[in-house]
Amino acid sequence: MRAEAAPSFLLLPELAEAGARLTLPEPEAHYLTRVCRARPGDRVSATDGRGARATVRLLADDRPAAVEVESCDRRPRTRTAWMLAGPPEGERGDWLVEKLGELGVDVFQPVDCERAAWAARRERTERWRRLAVAALRQSRRRFLLEIRPPRPLEDLLRDLPPTPARWVADPAGGPASGVVAPPEGLAIGLIGPSAGLAPRELELVLEAGFSRMALSDSRLRTETAAMAWACWWGAAVARPTPQARSGDP
Amino acid sequence: MRAEAAPSFLLLPELAEAGARLTLPEPEAHYLTRVCRARPGDRVSATDGRGARATVRLLADDRPAAVEVESCDRRPRTRTAWMLAGPPEGERGDWLVEKLGELGVDVFQPVDCERAAWAARRERTERWRRLAVAALRQSRRRFLLEIRPPRPLEDLLRDLPPTPARWVADPAGGPASGVVAPPEGLAIGLIGPSAGLAPRELELVLEAGFSRMALSDSRLRTETAAMAWACWWGAAVARPTPQARSGDP
Repeated sequence: MRAEAAPSFLLLPELAEAGARLTLPEPEAHYLTRVCRARPGDRVSATDGRGARATVRLLADDRPAAVEVESCDRRPRTRTAWMLAGPPEGERGDWLVEKLGELGVDVFQPVDCERAAWAARRERTERWRRLAVAALRQSRRRFLLEIRPPRPLEDLLRDLPPTPARWVADPAGGPASGVVAPPEGLAIGLIGPSAGLAPRELELVLEAGFSRMALSDSRLRTETAAMAWACWWGAAVARPTPQARSGDP
Repeated sequence: MRAEAAPSFLLLPELAEAGARLTLPEPEAHYLTRVCRARPGDRVSATDGRGARATVRLLADDRPAAVEVESCDRRPRTRTAWMLAGPPEGERGDWLVEKLGELGVDVFQPVDCERAAWAARRERTERWRRLAVAALRQSRRRFLLEIRPPRPLEDLLRDLPPTPARWVADPAGGPASGVVAPPEGLAIGLIGPSAGLAPRELELVLEAGFSRMALSDSRLRTETAAMAWACWWGAAVARPTPQARSGDP
């Protein structure tokens, strides 16, 4: 691959053990051979988006393009974050998805609230998946952001996984800098819609074990608050490793 | 003003003491009377973007619209942040400006680096100012983000204000969560361009007293890293006050 080409990082959901040969799905084939201009024999990194990380070699640039897996290792996920968010204004959800993906959040759960609901639109789901894949490539992560369909807040609160690490963004809370993000296990962040949670909703959220957390000294837009929470969570895992130094977590 | 109207917050650089009458500049007049639909007698909040916060009353909806200052107080800035950043890809600088404004950063200093320079374009400067003003209104802040013209890194390093609180984003640094953001005084964050700082540049930066800081466990885009640093800095000032609780810092 040319030195000046974009750094390549493939998402191959069917990634298998060393020695396996895989046919590339069309978007990955296009990305690798046209965008990154890889040639037969070039080695590139790949993930299945579920913890595996592999080096694969491009076999031929015919279509369908195929690769051989040269090495593959898998790491368990020891630390996860879920972001539950009411709708921001306009199309600001797009960049929220991109940023949550870059910052390593595991699940994005849109939440329908009393004062605002996400409009369910199929084209948005597909666009969001493309943005999540681009963020995965950009940050060379092992885990793809999972984007769930919108759910009403009350329903959602009833069946959240049992973790005590739950925060709701609220200027009345203590500063985020005074709280240590959990070094392992699941952490859940909840951000209200641009009009805020209704008082009854905030009560339900606090009853469900969420603690208030102030993310800034002033009002933040919904998508900014969601990203600030993800930054707070992400800053605590910033463990330098030889791989991280070379940009390869 | 109608209950369902957008919350209004004026930027009036000429804001004066209680009793003064001011003619609104056209963009503020349009915003107040058309966007927020304020009527004569309505009270709204205003700032001069330099620490003053006032309540003003709309006198008449003729053009030019005028207001009377009913009360005004001024707070000194005890804590400031400067963001120095190389260029991100495409138009991603736009949302960086918006987010830095929302998060309360004081100065955005674009930096021209060996591997990438900001293209100097006047229309961008004007668009950025509009975005900074919108962010000020959104977050109801007393201080307007100051946007400076791009400068070469080496020049800039020579005349930075003398603060020891200087960080450069680098995956080889310690995690941001392990560093306490300064509770007062100036903090400076530096983010390289999307291609990274050149090794010689990083040396100069470290010689200038910057410490490395890891903002995530993986690679972040330039604008994401800049925002993550601003979130880290901003999370430490999230002091709840009665005003902050009602969204009025």
